[in-house]
Amino acid sequence: MENFVFQNATKIIFGKGTEAETGRECARFAKKVLLHYGGGSIKKSGLYDRVCHSLKEAGVAYVELAGVKPNPRLSLVQEGIRICRESKIEFVLAVGGGSVIDSAKAIAIGVPYRGDVWDFYTKKVPVKESLPVGVVLTIPAAGSEASNGSVITNEQGMFKKDAGAECMRPKFAVMNPALTFTLPAYQTACGAADIMAHVMERYFTRVSAVDFTDRLCEATLRTIIENVPVALAQPDDYDARAEIMWASTIAHNDLLGTGRVGDWGSHMIEHELSGIYDVAHGAGLAVVFPAWMKHVYKNDVNRFARFASRVWGVEPRFDWPERTALEGIGRTKSFFRDIGLPTTLQELGIRDDRMEEMAKKATEKGPVGNFARLGAKDVVSIYRLAL
Amino acid sequence: MENFVFQNATKIIFGKGTEAETGRECARFAKKVLLHYGGGSIKKSGLYDRVCHSLKEAGVAYVELAGVKPNPRLSLVQEGIRICRESKIEFVLAVGGGSVIDSAKAIAIGVPYRGDVWDFYTKKVPVKESLPVGVVLTIPAAGSEASNGSVITNEQGMFKKDAGAECMRPKFAVMNPALTFTLPAYQTACGAADIMAHVMERYFTRVSAVDFTDRLCEATLRTIIENVPVALAQPDDYDARAEIMWASTIAHNDLLGTGRVGDWGSHMIEHELSGIYDVAHGAGLAVVFPAWMKHVYKNDVNRFARFASRVWGVEPRFDWPERTALEGIGRTKSFFRDIGLPTTLQELGIRDDRMEEMAKKATEKGPVGNFARLGAKDVVSIYRLAL
Repeated sequence: MENFVFQNATKIIFGKGTEAETGRECARFAKKVLLHYGGGSIKKSGLYDRVCHSLKEAGVAYVELAGVKPNPRLSLVQEGIRICRESKIEFVLAVGGGSVIDSAKAIAIGVPYRGDVWDFYTKKVPVKESLPVGVVLTIPAAGSEASNGSVITNEQGMFKKDAGAECMRPKFAVMNPALTFTLPAYQTACGAADIMAHVMERYFTRVSAVDFTDRLCEATLRTIIENVPVALAQPDDYDARAEIMWASTIAHNDLLGTGRVGDWGSHMIEHELSGIYDVAHGAGLAVVFPAWMKHVYKNDVNRFARFASRVWGVEPRFDWPERTALEGIGRTKSFFRDIGLPTTLQELGIRDDRMEEMAKKATEKGPVGNFARLGAKDVVSIYRLAL
Repeated sequence: MENFVFQNATKIIFGKGTEAETGRECARFAKKVLLHYGGGSIKKSGLYDRVCHSLKEAGVAYVELAGVKPNPRLSLVQEGIRICRESKIEFVLAVGGGSVIDSAKAIAIGVPYRGDVWDFYTKKVPVKESLPVGVVLTIPAAGSEASNGSVITNEQGMFKKDAGAECMRPKFAVMNPALTFTLPAYQTACGAADIMAHVMERYFTRVSAVDFTDRLCEATLRTIIENVPVALAQPDDYDARAEIMWASTIAHNDLLGTGRVGDWGSHMIEHELSGIYDVAHGAGLAVVFPAWMKHVYKNDVNRFARFASRVWGVEPRFDWPERTALEGIGRTKSFFRDIGLPTTLQELGIRDDRMEEMAKKATEKGPVGNFARLGAKDVVSIYRLAL
């Protein structure tokens, strides 16, 4: 096991009706907040009204900035920074899913910084300061509600980059599973792939002696595998939605990565896809991850066999572990297909004409991944396996 | 799933050599600390010297208070409070196991309170304020390094009581698994029972739809079951010690209880034992828990069958779930016996002459437990089952 430091102070306020606490939680930090969200879905569902009511009741003023899109854009972040400065706003409240939260985090680090906020994403400067951020979560997927990271797309060149720092972790996350009843099936499934990918990126490690966190990872994956089909069949099943929602936070709050070195190659490879083609991150991961697995499993067949046995219930073949490993990869891909996700680039309408370009961008800072170090050629091979 | 609030801000600094960070972490909170510990073991191991060196290096002054015993006593807590007030100390550093940490927490809440610190334990007044506490952990068992509670024994009447509040959670916990190499086998085993009991108290709940946390509980129990025999056979196996140590924190940092209502009856029943007879808490739990299980399993046979199947690998008998449930209880008891713990009161040298007295004390505020509500008669039955 590797040495580690783990601290996650995000306050989780979980359960039915918890959005009514939003105002009170914000009031602990600021008298005026930026209310940041996406499109009309939170207005249609009534959540917008309930959050505004809660803010007013707590005496918290707000300025609105709507319009966050999936793969959130730098231009809106820059607008948010401008508004916060002009209106002397000291807190950013994200109401939405991962894109809204990531956009809110970007605004929050941009406000106290004199330069261009994109500097943090190109790693030109490290993040040292942030306005506090709070979350009312509507989509369990990205885990951004308790993570220290943010991913933003720069439209000029369609670069999708991440920034991270401890001060970026949200102060609180209000999580009412009932808010996810109205999520379309496809978005529920994309969320499942994203959650599973967060766990699997950590699971596939070259660090040995990580028994406890292996088991926590397996428990989280099993929870998604059991509950997502239930939520798809019965969208207003509170219990299934609650299991998925809580698992999505734990999948990405850093606990499952303690003592390990995660891989993150699949995320890098997918970022290029969703950067150029604007596909949903979860759908991209459902395509990339099984292809990545096929490309790398020989680096540690036993770990893949364990994954197959513990996560998918595949009977272990001790005489032929590779068989068990491959069976686990097959089950992963089948599961994504069964919940309605694409598992090939073709299904996403992507052909093989820009693979070299994407592979070059993915590896511009050197090889990606830790379980396997992948150069541009490997990345192209993975794209090809995903065709 | 029940609504919940979860927040645990304790900073975990985990791994080889991490005690060298102690001074720097303390310096973030205070210039002068109370260095609180037990007996000579930390001096023999060299830990005492390394911690003192780290404090000096960071410019942190310290006043010492040694002498914490298992089942930590109120009188020493009161001495600690007096010292802190006299020496204007603003931070309590616990170097040791659960008893030292609990004693440190008691001192920390006693200092800013004008009345008798025991008031917090009798629940006469709620805890509202605490000096910050830091930990260098030497025994993985109690989970106090990241919990919000403290258990103290009042020698006048041998009352063992707990107090808890969010402000009591340690600010940091330095955890070096190598510090546990020298733990005697019996103490390692007692720790294992304590860790498992923390998980099982949460696992046996009447709340339905707790799939994710069930799985996290099962993962934690499996980790202990797999790694404790390794650590007993090979006391300096770093990896096994690391798994146990990290699992011990997660077992009791509140994550595994999210969305659930735990039982805690066995802890209440055991507290009377270790209050009167001064037995090691873990040993007491190894005796009480299987007896508790036998007394209550009929309240939810399916949950006990799940426990047997998932934690102990018992083949499920769907035609006779009670058989599976009982097999799981038997395995629990056998495991405790196999790792060298007593599983009967007789082995602890305890006879049946004070059972009514203990049962009366355990239930003086009403029935104990939530999975099953137990009155004094039930508690006597459980003591008898444990004979």
